[in-house]
Amino acid sequence: MSQAHTSRELLNAAGRAMARLRSRGARVHCLTNAVAQPFTANVLLAAGATPSMTVAREEIASFTNRADAVLINLGTLDPPRMAAMKAAGELCEETGKPFVLDPVMCHLSSLRRDFAVRLLQHAPAILRSNAAEAQAIEEAAPGARVSAGTGAACQVVTGEQDSIVHDGVKYQLANGHPWLSKVTAAGCAQGALMAATSAAAESLPAAAAAALLWMNVAAENAARTAQGPGSFQAALVDCIYDLEPAELIERAKLA
Amino acid sequence: MSQAHTSRELLNAAGRAMARLRSRGARVHCLTNAVAQPFTANVLLAAGATPSMTVAREEIASFTNRADAVLINLGTLDPPRMAAMKAAGELCEETGKPFVLDPVMCHLSSLRRDFAVRLLQHAPAILRSNAAEAQAIEEAAPGARVSAGTGAACQVVTGEQDSIVHDGVKYQLANGHPWLSKVTAAGCAQGALMAATSAAAESLPAAAAAALLWMNVAAENAARTAQGPGSFQAALVDCIYDLEPAELIERAKLA
Amino acid sequence: MSQAHTSRELLNAAGRAMARLRSRGARVHCLTNAVAQPFTANVLLAAGATPSMTVAREEIASFTNRADAVLINLGTLDPPRMAAMKAAGELCEETGKPFVLDPVMCHLSSLRRDFAVRLLQHAPAILRSNAAEAQAIEEAAPGARVSAGTGAACQVVTGEQDSIVHDGVKYQLANGHPWLSKVTAAGCAQGALMAATSAAAESLPAAAAAALLWMNVAAENAARTAQGPGSFQAALVDCIYDLEPAELIERAKLA
Repeated sequence: MSQAHTSRELLNAAGRAMARLRSRGARVHCLTNAVAQPFTANVLLAAGATPSMTVAREEIASFTNRADAVLINLGTLDPPRMAAMKAAGELCEETGKPFVLDPVMCHLSSLRRDFAVRLLQHAPAILRSNAAEAQAIEEAAPGARVSAGTGAACQVVTGEQDSIVHDGVKYQLANGHPWLSKVTAAGCAQGALMAATSAAAESLPAAAAAALLWMNVAAENAARTAQGPGSFQAALVDCIYDLEPAELIERAKLA
Repeated sequence: MSQAHTSRELLNAAGRAMARLRSRGARVHCLTNAVAQPFTANVLLAAGATPSMTVAREEIASFTNRADAVLINLGTLDPPRMAAMKAAGELCEETGKPFVLDPVMCHLSSLRRDFAVRLLQHAPAILRSNAAEAQAIEEAAPGARVSAGTGAACQVVTGEQDSIVHDGVKYQLANGHPWLSKVTAAGCAQGALMAATSAAAESLPAAAAAALLWMNVAAENAARTAQGPGSFQAALVDCIYDLEPAELIERAKLA
Repeated sequence: MSQAHTSRELLNAAGRAMARLRSRGARVHCLTNAVAQPFTANVLLAAGATPSMTVAREEIASFTNRADAVLINLGTLDPPRMAAMKAAGELCEETGKPFVLDPVMCHLSSLRRDFAVRLLQHAPAILRSNAAEAQAIEEAAPGARVSAGTGAACQVVTGEQDSIVHDGVKYQLANGHPWLSKVTAAGCAQGALMAATSAAAESLPAAAAAALLWMNVAAENAARTAQGPGSFQAALVDCIYDLEPAELIERAKLA
C-alpha cells in the first residue's frame, strides 16, 4: 500500500506519470461504447498511449494480455460487450493488471448497475463515475466501492470538483471547462486516459490526478482559442498533445 | 390538429422551439447508425439536447421511457438494431412520444424499405428522407406516408429545397450549403435534431422547420470561415451552438 | 496484365486516377472497424467518392453489387463482420470487382491472420498492410501474398517509406507526416481511399500510388497550418479535398 500523498507530492507524482507515459508509451485496451471509440482513440494517441478497441470475444485474451492497462466503460452495453468485459475483468484480476471501470449511466439502467457491481468483484484499480452513478452503485452494493479485495482500490467522482479517494484519504481538484460537457465522450476518453496513466504512475491517486488534470487543464487551454464546442474538441486534442508536466503542476487547482 | 401556419407564423414558431430547446433541454434517445453516432451526439449537445444511444434490447424500455423524443435512423441496419427499433416504435406509439423516422438508403435495400413501412404503422411524428427514399416508401405502401393513424403525421423531404407537408399544407425552405453533403452523417444528425425540436415545438411543422433551418443556416455561417469540409464540420457544431432564434428567422429562405 | 510503369508514368497515372475519381465519383462499400467508420467516410467524401458501411449480412449483396470497389479492413473483427466480409469477398471474386484487404493488427491475433489468409484466396486487388502484418501473413501462407489467382494482385506495405509491388516490379514512395500516426484510423481511411482509386485507375500500382500520395501529400500540407493532431485531423480532410493532380505529381518523393 502506498502512503497518503501531501498535495504537493500528489501533483509531482502526477507530473511524473505524465512524463513517463510520454516517454515509454502504454498500450491500453478499451472496451468502450460505440459513440466514444474514435475520440477516445485520438485522446490516447495525443497523450502518447496506443489504443486497441476490439470487443470480439475471441480476441480479448490476446489484446488484454499484451495491454499495459484496460478500460471498461459501460456505455452502449450489449451482450457481446458484456462477454468481453467479463473476460477482461477476470484476466486483469488474475494478472494484477490495472483496469479502470467507468459505469456510464448505471443510475438509469439496472442492467448496467448490476453489471458494474459484478465487475467490482474483479478489483478494478480505479472506479471512475459521476456522483449519480456512484450513488447507484453504493445503494446496490453498500461499501463495495472502495475496499481491499472486494471493490475498487481507488474511487474518482467527477463533477464541478473532482474527488479522489484512496486508502481513506481524499483529494479534490477543481480544473475544467463547461465545454467539456458539450463534447460527447470527453468523460469516456478521460477514463481511458486514466487507464493509461495507471500503467505509468507510482500510485493510483497519482494516476487519477494525472488524467483528471491532463484533460481539464488542456480543456482550459483549448477554450482560449476555440470558437465553440466543435473547434474546442479539436483544440482539446491539440492541447492534450502539447501540455507539459510543469504546466500541469502549476495550473492544478487543489480544492 | 394544429391549424396551418402562415409562413411568418411557421418561422416564429420555429424560433420559439429553438429557444425552448435551449432553455429546457430535451433527452433524445437515438437508435442510429454506427457511422453517425459521434457527430449526432455532438450536434445534439451543441443544440442543448441530451443524447443517449444504446441499442441493447434490454435497455430500450428504460431509455425510451425517460426520453422526450426518439430518433429511428435505418443506416447500418442489423438484427440488434431492428429489435431495438421495433420495441422503441411500439413504446412511442403507446405513450404518444414523438419519434422521427429516417429511412436512410431504403431505396437501395428491400430490407430497409420493408422495415420502414412497418415502422410507419407506429405513427412517427415525422418521416424525414430524401426524394429517392420517399419514392421507395410510396411505391411500397401507397398513401402510407402522411395520413392519420397509418403513417407519419408530418413528412419532410430534403434536397436542394426542403419540403414539409402536414395536414395537406406544404412549406418549402431553401437554406443550406453544398459542404453539408461532404460531412458524413450531417443529414442523420439533422434527423436527431428534428427529434429534439419535436419535443420542444408547438407543432410538427414548426419542429421540422426549426431543425432544417438550424442546421442549414448554421452551415451557411460555418462555410464563411471553413477551409474545406474538415474544418467545416467543426465550425458547423460551433455555429449550431451560436445561432440565435432571431437570426434563424431573419435568414430563412422560404421558397 | 499491365506493363511496369516508369516512375514518371506511375505518377502521371496516379494523377489521372485522382482526376477521374473527382469527376466520375466511385461508390465504395467499406467493411471496416467501428473506430474508423466516421473518419473513413469523411475522407472518401472529401476525395469525391461515396461511402456505404453496412455490415448486415442481409444487405451485403445489394451494397457490394452496386459498389465500384470494396474495402475489407479487419480491425474490431467480430462474427457479424466476418460473415459480411466472406460474402463480399466471394462476390468481388465472382464479378471481378476490385477489393482492398487491410489486415489490421493481424500480427497480434491468430483469428485475424488466419482470416486474412482465407480472404486472400478471393484475390483482392490490393493487400495493404504495415511490415509486421505483411510478415505475419507471409509466415502463415508463404508466397500467397502476391501471385496470380491465389493472392493479392498488388501489395502495398506502408511505413517510413511506402512500397508497392506488382508483377515483380517494386515502387517506393516517401511522403507523409508523423502526425498521421496520431490520428486514429488514418491508415484505415487510406485503405478505403485506395479502394476508391482502384475503381478509377488504369492500373493497380497507379491506384495504390494515387491513394498513398493523396493522403501523404495532403498530410504534409495539413501540418503547415495545424496546431496539433486534433486540428491536423480536420486540416487533413480539407487538404484531401483541395489537392490537385499537378501538385500530387510535383510533390511525390520517389525513393
